[in-house]
Amino acid sequence: MGFELAESTRLGFIGAGQMAEAIARGLVNKGVIPAHRITTSDISPSRQKVFQGFGVSVQPSNADVAANSDVLIVAVKPQYVPVVLSDASSQLTKNHLVVSIAAGVALKDLESWAGGARVVRVMPNTPCLVGETAAALSPGTLATTEDVELVKGLFSALGQIHVVKESLLNAVTGLSGSGPAYVFIAIEALADGGVAAGLPRDVARSLAAQTVLGAAKMVIETGKHPGQLKDEVASPAGTTIAGIHELEKAGFRAALMNAVIAATKRGDEMSG
Amino acid sequence: MGFELAESTRLGFIGAGQMAEAIARGLVNKGVIPAHRITTSDISPSRQKVFQGFGVSVQPSNADVAANSDVLIVAVKPQYVPVVLSDASSQLTKNHLVVSIAAGVALKDLESWAGGARVVRVMPNTPCLVGETAAALSPGTLATTEDVELVKGLFSALGQIHVVKESLLNAVTGLSGSGPAYVFIAIEALADGGVAAGLPRDVARSLAAQTVLGAAKMVIETGKHPGQLKDEVASPAGTTIAGIHELEKAGFRAALMNAVIAATKRGDEMSG
Repeated sequence: MGFELAESTRLGFIGAGQMAEAIARGLVNKGVIPAHRITTSDISPSRQKVFQGFGVSVQPSNADVAANSDVLIVAVKPQYVPVVLSDASSQLTKNHLVVSIAAGVALKDLESWAGGARVVRVMPNTPCLVGETAAALSPGTLATTEDVELVKGLFSALGQIHVVKESLLNAVTGLSGSGPAYVFIAIEALADGGVAAGLPRDVARSLAAQTVLGAAKMVIETGKHPGQLKDEVASPAGTTIAGIHELEKAGFRAALMNAVIAATKRGDEMSG
Repeated sequence: MGFELAESTRLGFIGAGQMAEAIARGLVNKGVIPAHRITTSDISPSRQKVFQGFGVSVQPSNADVAANSDVLIVAVKPQYVPVVLSDASSQLTKNHLVVSIAAGVALKDLESWAGGARVVRVMPNTPCLVGETAAALSPGTLATTEDVELVKGLFSALGQIHVVKESLLNAVTGLSGSGPAYVFIAIEALADGGVAAGLPRDVARSLAAQTVLGAAKMVIETGKHPGQLKDEVASPAGTTIAGIHELEKAGFRAALMNAVIAATKRGDEMSG
């Protein structure tokens, strides 16, 4: 059932940072593409070694990566995207599919820099690293249905991905792009609560992280509404409803909604 | 590497509700014990059918379950524990290990009702259902090191389990027992935030649940402090720190700490 790239498809990464590594390793581990069909380029010798370490060939330049790939994943910081695409442009053709994971860099700009190549924007998040990303994509004007299916296939191997309008990518950034940070804070706070209640720190941290994981998995696997699952664990006059009362008194829901909205707005500002 | 019960060990469930089912199914699915070495009893014919449906034999009475098991898991609501143990007591011997998952029922009471059997208390949580429980156990005065290892083995197949002093079991209830409800609310609120920012409901719900899952998995798999992971995703003047600011303004951390503390206190009150 797993997605596999066509035998001839070659994958290139411009930029060999953490996200590029997470994506490349994930795709190799899941059998989507063998490492020998992947190339990358990066100015850092230590990052080059990391990629060579799992069988990816390192090219001397961004143009060489473009020349040796059909699908080109641009995984550099947003401000470097124009530079790296201009480096690669001599080798970029309309046969290339360019996939940008740079936050806030618009499809129309990507298309203008990519010299006629088809373009898809993706907003992944860092749980890519553990194969559990929550991502969204928006296709450019030249991207085909097959391009969208290919990018969906790639990222489905690394978690889940949805297709949205480009105008919604900042909302995705505000929710799933920035969301892991909210969850990290929640885990730390739950552990602190456990320590306040007397638990040893290591037990509290472990119970907190595992509880968050388990509850999320229940939402995903049961397909039930989270409100229903909440009702099912809240016994009359029990411990759970006592905890819930504290959350509601503090405006816990509004805080999380505000966080998503504020992060989305910040994304809108940054996109100009 | 998986835990397996000794070939001769027979497992009995008094009570065939949701938690009993989650535990029994999980143990069978993980190969810890074959279904034909498990028995249960329950007054509800529909619950009997569920257990028979995956190969567990249903006994006419609690005493029959005790007579046909070495390890007896008591999975009824707390108020029914004295009754079911008194039902079973004619067949309970000091060769039995009684494992109670009833919240707030003390070891000393369990031991007095269990007629000389060894007793271990466990506080699991509902993600047992998806194999991701966060649990803790406390051994009674007669329980051996082997008993503790056996119960750890059983619940490790269903998630994770820690050994704590009995006086801390209410803190475990406040954190991991009641914690899934806090996470369900957080997922609903993150999804609401996404909808407020313009995302379709189904995309927002899916991104929210997957983001919570992925972030928790990152904490568990990387072993990094959640505070460090938070720092790593918060770029200068970026979207994430804008979201975090909203959480901190609202006292998000204190709300979660208060929830754990309040639920723990309620557990203390209920334990009398």
